[in-house]
Amino acid sequence: MDPKPILMVGSMAFDDLEFPVPTPDAGGALKTSFEDVVGGSATYASLAASAFVPVRVVAVVGHDFPEGTLETMRARGVDTAGVERADGLTFRWKGRYHADLVNRDTLDTQLNVFANFKPKLAPGYGTSPLVLLGNIHPALQLEVLDQMQKPELVVADTMNFWISGEPEILGRLIARTDLLIINDEEARLLSGIHNLAKAAKDILARGPKCLIIKRGEHGSLFFDSEGVFAAPALLLEHVVDPTGAGDSFAGGLLGYLGRHGRYDHGAMRRAMVHGTAAASFCVESVGTLGLRGLSHSHITERVERIRRLTHVGDT
Amino acid sequence: MDPKPILMVGSMAFDDLEFPVPTPDAGGALKTSFEDVVGGSATYASLAASAFVPVRVVAVVGHDFPEGTLETMRARGVDTAGVERADGLTFRWKGRYHADLVNRDTLDTQLNVFANFKPKLAPGYGTSPLVLLGNIHPALQLEVLDQMQKPELVVADTMNFWISGEPEILGRLIARTDLLIINDEEARLLSGIHNLAKAAKDILARGPKCLIIKRGEHGSLFFDSEGVFAAPALLLEHVVDPTGAGDSFAGGLLGYLGRHGRYDHGAMRRAMVHGTAAASFCVESVGTLGLRGLSHSHITERVERIRRLTHVGDT
Repeated sequence: MDPKPILMVGSMAFDDLEFPVPTPDAGGALKTSFEDVVGGSATYASLAASAFVPVRVVAVVGHDFPEGTLETMRARGVDTAGVERADGLTFRWKGRYHADLVNRDTLDTQLNVFANFKPKLAPGYGTSPLVLLGNIHPALQLEVLDQMQKPELVVADTMNFWISGEPEILGRLIARTDLLIINDEEARLLSGIHNLAKAAKDILARGPKCLIIKRGEHGSLFFDSEGVFAAPALLLEHVVDPTGAGDSFAGGLLGYLGRHGRYDHGAMRRAMVHGTAAASFCVESVGTLGLRGLSHSHITERVERIRRLTHVGDT
Repeated sequence: MDPKPILMVGSMAFDDLEFPVPTPDAGGALKTSFEDVVGGSATYASLAASAFVPVRVVAVVGHDFPEGTLETMRARGVDTAGVERADGLTFRWKGRYHADLVNRDTLDTQLNVFANFKPKLAPGYGTSPLVLLGNIHPALQLEVLDQMQKPELVVADTMNFWISGEPEILGRLIARTDLLIINDEEARLLSGIHNLAKAAKDILARGPKCLIIKRGEHGSLFFDSEGVFAAPALLLEHVVDPTGAGDSFAGGLLGYLGRHGRYDHGAMRRAMVHGTAAASFCVESVGTLGLRGLSHSHITERVERIRRLTHVGDT
């Protein structure tokens, strides 16, 4: 069957990153501070998904965003007709990672052109069979959804800020979502329940057919009416920058689903490990570097490593 | 083949436990404080292992330790001839769990009869094919090992206190260990390396044939020259007391190995999920309650759940 295209809405950004240890840049030079690193949820997710299927992006950038990144995306089959170039500066996030390369502090956030972002679907985007509603205001996520014509699979990401600040609108979004992807902290906040098995039940009762709870270096959990699946993270020796790992995971996951056109429980399990594989390439270099040349065969090779990692075998 | 008996040395103790939420006791009454809960690494590990094989225990208790617990152990095939009843009070630990039921503060430790513990092997113990050297002073672990006649498998546990305080003696123990079982924090302290994949390589270079790194609710990792295996923890809805989970894991793991008499990479993978299953019963009730009636079929049922939890399936 033909691969199914994915519509993605989210951020395209510059990240200023500080690491606890010297980290190689694209040229191999060691630095602890990186400025103007191209990032954003839509950038990471579309680079990962484009290893599987055509991708269509809805986002906004400023006049300072590099055309070269958009060219790289297009060369990978990403349709950037929905990327609006607005007058002003690109969204910018500055963060400092702790020694564990997991926890991080936000040092600065400049919304810039993102502050007035009104997602507009480019011609033909509305019929995309899969849609990833990246982490933006849930009202905007709903606006995108309202412009879609019966997508087969609606996937949404969100964050603490919207869970606490916009619970009513977010509730409406979640009710219209097939697959919600959040992390463990967000699942606990959304449900008000610490135990993840119980929190997942509570969240599934709010409407989504299925739920993924991400646990960073500890992998991720999938829940639906048929049961639970635990995907391990790969045990990597060279983790340098976790920025975008969650978005790459979502991109790889949707890419797999779009390529195979099935959304049953078994397909979701396989999609999880493909997302995990995509994320593993993301964290091995700074920014999007590990994703720009990512091929489908790179991913399937890592998927085999993940399968071996949890293979129990028979007595 | 005949199941192979396991020699275990470790603590037998009273625990005073404080929980963040009301927790049912053996009679179903809800309390947040529990006193005189029978615990200790040797107690938990031997109760778990005795679902698989005969167990022999080397430990010390005071005059206040309940004979009923020793009778329960004996009824499960645990040889308690090596449990010395000394004049004085049993080792006591008092701890308070945080809201996450993972982190905990030690409020009090009373070594009591454990302060002068000199492990003595009862007649016949020295020929045990498998030995679990529980977390006690590494000099005592070595003393036990010196009394053994060519065990087939030497497994050792240790903790931060000995890693920092007795690095030289601990190093000698580790060099004579086949399988070292520690948690992630201890692996980082022992190796001085944050990245667990690199930390594991460093530790394996110190002598043990294989290494298990426990990650609590996130499962555990196995490392040897053939690769890595990640065992997930079961996603339980009713976790009430994690005390003894690691010891139950070790007990179940050794129990499986003793029952099958093989210690190759594949056997270790299967042993890991059996240990995980044993630990899952431990955490569902306060103290050793969940282990006292634990049967082999209870465990194999949970092992199937663990297999399903990580089963990826084919495309």
